[in-house]
Amino acid sequence: MKKKLRCGIFGSTGYTGLKLIDLILQRDDLEIVFIGSEQHKGEKFSKIFPNYQNRINLNFSGLNNDFINSLDKNQVDFVFFATPNGVCFQYAPSLIARGIHVIDLSADYRFRDIKTYEAWYSFNRTDLEANRSAIYGLVEFNHQAIISKAQDRSQGVLIGNPGCYTTAAILALTPLLKHSPQNLDLDSIIIDGKSGISGAGRKAEIKLLFSELNDSCSPYNLGGKHRHIPELEMFFGDVAQKPCGIVFSPHLIPMTQGLLVTCYIKTKSSQIDISELKNFYRETYQNFPHNYILEDGIYPQTAWAVDSNRSYIQIDFDKPQNTLIITCAIDNLVKGAGGQGLQNLDLIAGQA
Amino acid sequence: MKKKLRCGIFGSTGYTGLKLIDLILQRDDLEIVFIGSEQHKGEKFSKIFPNYQNRINLNFSGLNNDFINSLDKNQVDFVFFATPNGVCFQYAPSLIARGIHVIDLSADYRFRDIKTYEAWYSFNRTDLEANRSAIYGLVEFNHQAIISKAQDRSQGVLIGNPGCYTTAAILALTPLLKHSPQNLDLDSIIIDGKSGISGAGRKAEIKLLFSELNDSCSPYNLGGKHRHIPELEMFFGDVAQKPCGIVFSPHLIPMTQGLLVTCYIKTKSSQIDISELKNFYRETYQNFPHNYILEDGIYPQTAWAVDSNRSYIQIDFDKPQNTLIITCAIDNLVKGAGGQGLQNLDLIAGQA
Amino acid sequence: MKKKLRCGIFGSTGYTGLKLIDLILQRDDLEIVFIGSEQHKGEKFSKIFPNYQNRINLNFSGLNNDFINSLDKNQVDFVFFATPNGVCFQYAPSLIARGIHVIDLSADYRFRDIKTYEAWYSFNRTDLEANRSAIYGLVEFNHQAIISKAQDRSQGVLIGNPGCYTTAAILALTPLLKHSPQNLDLDSIIIDGKSGISGAGRKAEIKLLFSELNDSCSPYNLGGKHRHIPELEMFFGDVAQKPCGIVFSPHLIPMTQGLLVTCYIKTKSSQIDISELKNFYRETYQNFPHNYILEDGIYPQTAWAVDSNRSYIQIDFDKPQNTLIITCAIDNLVKGAGGQGLQNLDLIAGQA
Amino acid sequence: MKKKLRCGIFGSTGYTGLKLIDLILQRDDLEIVFIGSEQHKGEKFSKIFPNYQNRINLNFSGLNNDFINSLDKNQVDFVFFATPNGVCFQYAPSLIARGIHVIDLSADYRFRDIKTYEAWYSFNRTDLEANRSAIYGLVEFNHQAIISKAQDRSQGVLIGNPGCYTTAAILALTPLLKHSPQNLDLDSIIIDGKSGISGAGRKAEIKLLFSELNDSCSPYNLGGKHRHIPELEMFFGDVAQKPCGIVFSPHLIPMTQGLLVTCYIKTKSSQIDISELKNFYRETYQNFPHNYILEDGIYPQTAWAVDSNRSYIQIDFDKPQNTLIITCAIDNLVKGAGGQGLQNLDLIAGQA
Repeated sequence: MKKKLRCGIFGSTGYTGLKLIDLILQRDDLEIVFIGSEQHKGEKFSKIFPNYQNRINLNFSGLNNDFINSLDKNQVDFVFFATPNGVCFQYAPSLIARGIHVIDLSADYRFRDIKTYEAWYSFNRTDLEANRSAIYGLVEFNHQAIISKAQDRSQGVLIGNPGCYTTAAILALTPLLKHSPQNLDLDSIIIDGKSGISGAGRKAEIKLLFSELNDSCSPYNLGGKHRHIPELEMFFGDVAQKPCGIVFSPHLIPMTQGLLVTCYIKTKSSQIDISELKNFYRETYQNFPHNYILEDGIYPQTAWAVDSNRSYIQIDFDKPQNTLIITCAIDNLVKGAGGQGLQNLDLIAGQA
Repeated sequence: MKKKLRCGIFGSTGYTGLKLIDLILQRDDLEIVFIGSEQHKGEKFSKIFPNYQNRINLNFSGLNNDFINSLDKNQVDFVFFATPNGVCFQYAPSLIARGIHVIDLSADYRFRDIKTYEAWYSFNRTDLEANRSAIYGLVEFNHQAIISKAQDRSQGVLIGNPGCYTTAAILALTPLLKHSPQNLDLDSIIIDGKSGISGAGRKAEIKLLFSELNDSCSPYNLGGKHRHIPELEMFFGDVAQKPCGIVFSPHLIPMTQGLLVTCYIKTKSSQIDISELKNFYRETYQNFPHNYILEDGIYPQTAWAVDSNRSYIQIDFDKPQNTLIITCAIDNLVKGAGGQGLQNLDLIAGQA
Repeated sequence: MKKKLRCGIFGSTGYTGLKLIDLILQRDDLEIVFIGSEQHKGEKFSKIFPNYQNRINLNFSGLNNDFINSLDKNQVDFVFFATPNGVCFQYAPSLIARGIHVIDLSADYRFRDIKTYEAWYSFNRTDLEANRSAIYGLVEFNHQAIISKAQDRSQGVLIGNPGCYTTAAILALTPLLKHSPQNLDLDSIIIDGKSGISGAGRKAEIKLLFSELNDSCSPYNLGGKHRHIPELEMFFGDVAQKPCGIVFSPHLIPMTQGLLVTCYIKTKSSQIDISELKNFYRETYQNFPHNYILEDGIYPQTAWAVDSNRSYIQIDFDKPQNTLIITCAIDNLVKGAGGQGLQNLDLIAGQA
Repeated sequence: MKKKLRCGIFGSTGYTGLKLIDLILQRDDLEIVFIGSEQHKGEKFSKIFPNYQNRINLNFSGLNNDFINSLDKNQVDFVFFATPNGVCFQYAPSLIARGIHVIDLSADYRFRDIKTYEAWYSFNRTDLEANRSAIYGLVEFNHQAIISKAQDRSQGVLIGNPGCYTTAAILALTPLLKHSPQNLDLDSIIIDGKSGISGAGRKAEIKLLFSELNDSCSPYNLGGKHRHIPELEMFFGDVAQKPCGIVFSPHLIPMTQGLLVTCYIKTKSSQIDISELKNFYRETYQNFPHNYILEDGIYPQTAWAVDSNRSYIQIDFDKPQNTLIITCAIDNLVKGAGGQGLQNLDLIAGQA
């Protein structure tokens, strides 16, 4: 019998961490060797989360230097950080130095330019070398880089797992930006995002109560304030080889999981061959067939993507307005977080 | 005691008609004198809708020429059509000729240019005179016209009550288009609409089932296909005194009532004084204070507007992208339908 | 023009208080003269609740002896307490002594036997005289007592407004207990309650988050632990003139408002004339026709009752098991709280 | 590599069938060889259900004698019927005769006494032999019978998979009925069931629309009318070795999946050792540890069970009323349907 890959998880008391745990439990080839939380250190995991009774028989480890330093690649293969921003970068350099792979679901390792991170996230960073070695874990487009890094056995691989809105927008727009950037007004990108409430986190706040959010819908952080904007600008700037101007407007939708982006971009011509463009998308994703380009007139429903790494993409063209409208549905907690984390794990483990 | 205004309703078995009935029942100064439905003719209303037992003791009237011709302004003051498109225009001319006011919640009388209606709704129209006399019932901007028409006692007033998405978009953008049209790129208007499921109607279709829609979110009719587009182009073209190019993308949100529009428009300058602009909005709506301009950082929640004619409006500016983002929440079934219908009734009745 | 009745409200930051405010705002004959909260004292109400902008222009009063002592019946007619249990009884005696009516939506004045209150709610009480004068505000059955008390002008009326589950259960079972107590096994009453989430309060707790409760259903406080049990035992014991044994099981349902009770009681005979029993219910409620006895085969839906004082009641008989099953739907926040509070206000005001 | 078990599915356009397909797709050891629907015969499955694009590349087979007769155990190991009641019994005898296992998710093979089926389901049955050979597929209690039958290679195994409410009630009550039947009033069993809307089926009916059911809760079929009652009476009568009287009251809850039963039963004594009873439950389920007995004070939440075969059980005792209250949460579409079907498949396949 094949040896299971051993996973440790920090930050398991939020929705991202809990969903990651669920995904790992569903797989026969993975096992959870520790779950770390400084807050709950020493407590029984299934005491805090009774629905894991009989399934997880671990007490919480701490999340501190002593525990991190005690970790050894003979005990653990992958460490996931589902912690708030600003935690992972304190520990990741030490872990990868010892050959342990780190998959960070927070924003700490998403930015090549560490100053962008510092400006948007208000942390000072000194782990410049680790940050340089980190790979942005958008598997459809960066799998080659991830594979290469995994083949270098000198240290663990460090993955900066993409944000949820970012993942959906990248899946929706990257093939287009590769296909015909010259035909697009790159300053006209508008991404109208709709996320399930789990995206707002598991925090004891009045504004997140059922009775506040049920049967209601609301935008937030409009006008260039959401932290996924620099992530999108970095990625799309690389793809298009020139700066992209992005308006991003997130909204909360009364559903638990699921995320939809409705992306708008002006074209310079009204002659768009949607059929040809869809074929280009299909070719782009041919090795990642969980990304589905829908037939004309069928629209993505977020529920279709829930609890999977699937995405559903539709492309419409408003000819009188020369505007492409590309919609993409994913699960914010799976493809937009730990599910993609496990895709990264699989890529790395495949090179072992 | 003041005499009650007598209302008749056709098309009472959809969500628009039922909500209109609820709104009328809440008012001491209105009474329902008939409820018409050809399908249920002769049946007891409270047999079909048991929750109205003890509150409505009417049998359904029919909806046909005989019944229409039997109506008299000594029996009924206002007739509401909450019927599908293509019904009201068959009966309205005869009703207004007899001095009965008609408030049409369908699209039949929303278009000054009847060819636009014929093109988008696929009906042939011969009621040209009635259509010419109809007023688009967006009360905040057309109340003077409605009042004038009501003062002319020669015939009943005919109101084309606006669509739900249209109402929200007009409340969101009209003050801006009046304020500084020269500073806007009028071809760049994007309206991303989010509607509660009641907006999709009360039809026995699989796609409208609870288990299909709950915990999911989806766009529909993208790329210039939704029938509210010509309504928006007509209204905004009038306001801006030049053609406006509008991309409109509707989405279904898993909530029953409520509607949000997120409107994007490019500015020609990055010097936008949001505070001054908000004051202009507040002045515009000073006689309609149920339209609230929110303070900075507070975002409209659709639940706030539910079961009322209120709207909540926020204005954001994405300076790097020179893009204004204006959000507006209403109740699709109230301000977006029968609630605005009653505002029209009140304007007309106020001139009696 | 008739003078408006002036209402003051304490405890306005929970769902009960907010709904009460909504109900008062809908009425032309009532006005809110103060809203009290020690926590928010001095703050603008519409700053905390932006959706009341333009509708409520009050700053929060405090809730303390100084403010209470400053109140005068020339300024305020009715004071509502939507506060946690244990608050109202500190202030009510002083208010009623000055002729101000007090309607307490908490549990403080629901118990004739103050020891029952002390045992279940863990407060010591010295306001014995006030408690004796209080009337349990279940209007359908206690309206005569309320009217009598209101006619005595020597002091304000003190109403202990019933609990939400209790109200539904009382409406469901009281006519039956009056009709044929000798035919019932009074020790076999089971009340299975299903409440919308607003019933759990507006508290910043993880367990009340949208993502914890959406698309889920759960019981709580089973086995005789819920505080509505002594309220039910008191009321039903009075009606049946002997002790009643009640099992009460509350559940949380993923909806905001609404409450259903499914009540079971064994009969001593299998000869039950449901039709005759329903007629007895209809007679019982003939002066309170917002309580609807449904026709056979039509089941109460909580949404029917939402935002109203209506109840919907159905009676079924499981003949093989000699068990009556009586279901009743109300709105927990309206008939189950402030809506009934206003029914009490109307009864009292009607005697002025 | 191990050969995959080949599954065919009839009745794949309802929620039960679709969830079964999802469950099979998640398993590496199973493959779907046909999906049958007379209505959609010849159509591409992923045309009807676009979210299965790239995952299921089958056209619908028919459901008729020709197709059934063409099936061979060299092509298919298991045939699932997720069809309406009254379909499976027409085809199952022929399939099992050819050595193909049949797992029927409808009610056709749940009744040892075929007259009970005929009385409650209004079909005439002539497949007496097949019915006699069928096993009621409640795996926790009937696994030995299933294993024995599977070891007999002369024909396919025929499983009557239990109903959803029934499964939850059996898991909740069977250990109790085994533990101390002499201490229970077997005529006092009340089962108050709460089911997600998917349990009502995927039918184009107004009463199943989102806007009818969202934010509402309602009972249905009260007073001994639900078809799960004879199933419960059969099973519990067997366990207790004497007739059990059962009141069963189903309710629809505004959630898609999930089911909770709240079971009441009177005890003859007030001396109940809950701790000892819970241990007996834990022993009963020790080989089926996906059935979790919760610690005191922790209540089952249906969301915990969703998309799994898990159940969560709590036991409370209302001492003053001598009433045990046992709650159990499952997923109506998984443990209550196809998930248990796959547990049956696993038991049978394990004997191959």
